[in-house]
Amino acid sequence: MNLFYYPAACSLADHIALVEAGLSYKLLSIDHEKKTEDGRDFLSINPKGYIPTLEMDDGTILTENQTILTYIAERSGKLLPKDGLLRWRTLEALAFMSSEIHGNYNPFFRDYPEPEKVRAREKLRKAFAILSGQMGDQSFLLSDEVTIADCYLFWALMAAPRSGIELPENLGNYFDRMKVRPSVIRALAEEGLG
Amino acid sequence: MNLFYYPAACSLADHIALVEAGLSYKLLSIDHEKKTEDGRDFLSINPKGYIPTLEMDDGTILTENQTILTYIAERSGKLLPKDGLLRWRTLEALAFMSSEIHGNYNPFFRDYPEPEKVRAREKLRKAFAILSGQMGDQSFLLSDEVTIADCYLFWALMAAPRSGIELPENLGNYFDRMKVRPSVIRALAEEGLG
Ligand SMILES: N[C@@H](CCC(=O)N[C@@H](CS)C(=O)NCC(=O)O)C(=O)O
Ligand SMILES: N[C@@H](CCC(=O)N[C@@H](CS)C(=O)NCC(=O)O)C(=O)O
Repeated sequence: MNLFYYPAACSLADHIALVEAGLSYKLLSIDHEKKTEDGRDFLSINPKGYIPTLEMDDGTILTENQTILTYIAERSGKLLPKDGLLRWRTLEALAFMSSEIHGNYNPFFRDYPEPEKVRAREKLRKAFAILSGQMGDQSFLLSDEVTIADCYLFWALMAAPRSGIELPENLGNYFDRMKVRPSVIRALAEEGLG
Repeated sequence: MNLFYYPAACSLADHIALVEAGLSYKLLSIDHEKKTEDGRDFLSINPKGYIPTLEMDDGTILTENQTILTYIAERSGKLLPKDGLLRWRTLEALAFMSSEIHGNYNPFFRDYPEPEKVRAREKLRKAFAILSGQMGDQSFLLSDEVTIADCYLFWALMAAPRSGIELPENLGNYFDRMKVRPSVIRALAEEGLG
């Protein structure tokens, strides 16, 4: 499988999940002209033009962060229970982080006018407070078991300082623990962020 | 199961899915003081404060539109194949509509400043063009089989006029076909939109 990525972008979640799942993968970055590291036109691979984008061995293209994470989990049989409440809490957390956190990073990533940043910060604070309450003193977001929601959350926490918000204490501590997890160390190193 | 909703809001997707899936459900609206139709405090049910919110018979609360749709599908064994490419295309389309369409309706729903509306319209046009290409001349978004992605798409198309964008022709025709589907007729009527 090929994972198209930008270093430190949201594709980091999928990268960490691939390592956690023990699947084999190849990372391919994209340059400013939307050429892939192996010389192809990225827009003809994914007309949406964004990452993460997964290319399966048969050439099938899968997009959307949550969907790629869920695919990695279902394909490996890891990181997402097949049923029971933890399955639903995991999928719910992915959807929540995508809609209520990722979307609210845009004003900072793209430098939108200040009033939009103020509004986004307010939403981010509220969203992180909810995640903080959900985590409590568990080892991972939803239980003492790692799931694909943790892969996404790690990236969301890594990107948080750019928005100028402060993280709730348990999320800050969790971020520090995750940073020294072998899968995370390896993924960061492979993206040149070691 | 109880579905908390506002008439014509994004919970319509879940409402249509419940009908399509043949599951039994009760609809509960929420008033301006966040009191539920059956007299409870909505924020103590779902601290996120938004709909759709699903309350299972054992009291478990599930939030996030995509997740509720996926739950309805997995619970009923309908509207989402268990595996194969159509499963992944369906989940991908839900994530796409949530992140690239639903989020871009906020400037219109909440009357944000004009430059934000202009930017959102541009993103919406691009997103609908992608869905239009994906649908082609199929009966439903992803194939000739209805899925939970169609339930969400119907709502997304119904809300589109408020953003002032014009829909691609095949999506407009699809919307007209969906409007006369029994599940859609019933859901609209139950929300007082008949
Ligand atoms: N709906 C997509 C959005 C992905 C996204 O926003 N990707 C960003 C990086 S975090 C990107 O590629 N931006 C570059 C661009 O849009 O050109 C998803 O959830 O995966
Ligand atoms: N992340 C949520 C967002 C849901 C959402 O935006 N719901 C809107 C209606 S379409 C709502 O309840 N807005 C009222 C509010 O936020 O107070 C999801 O994807 O389900």
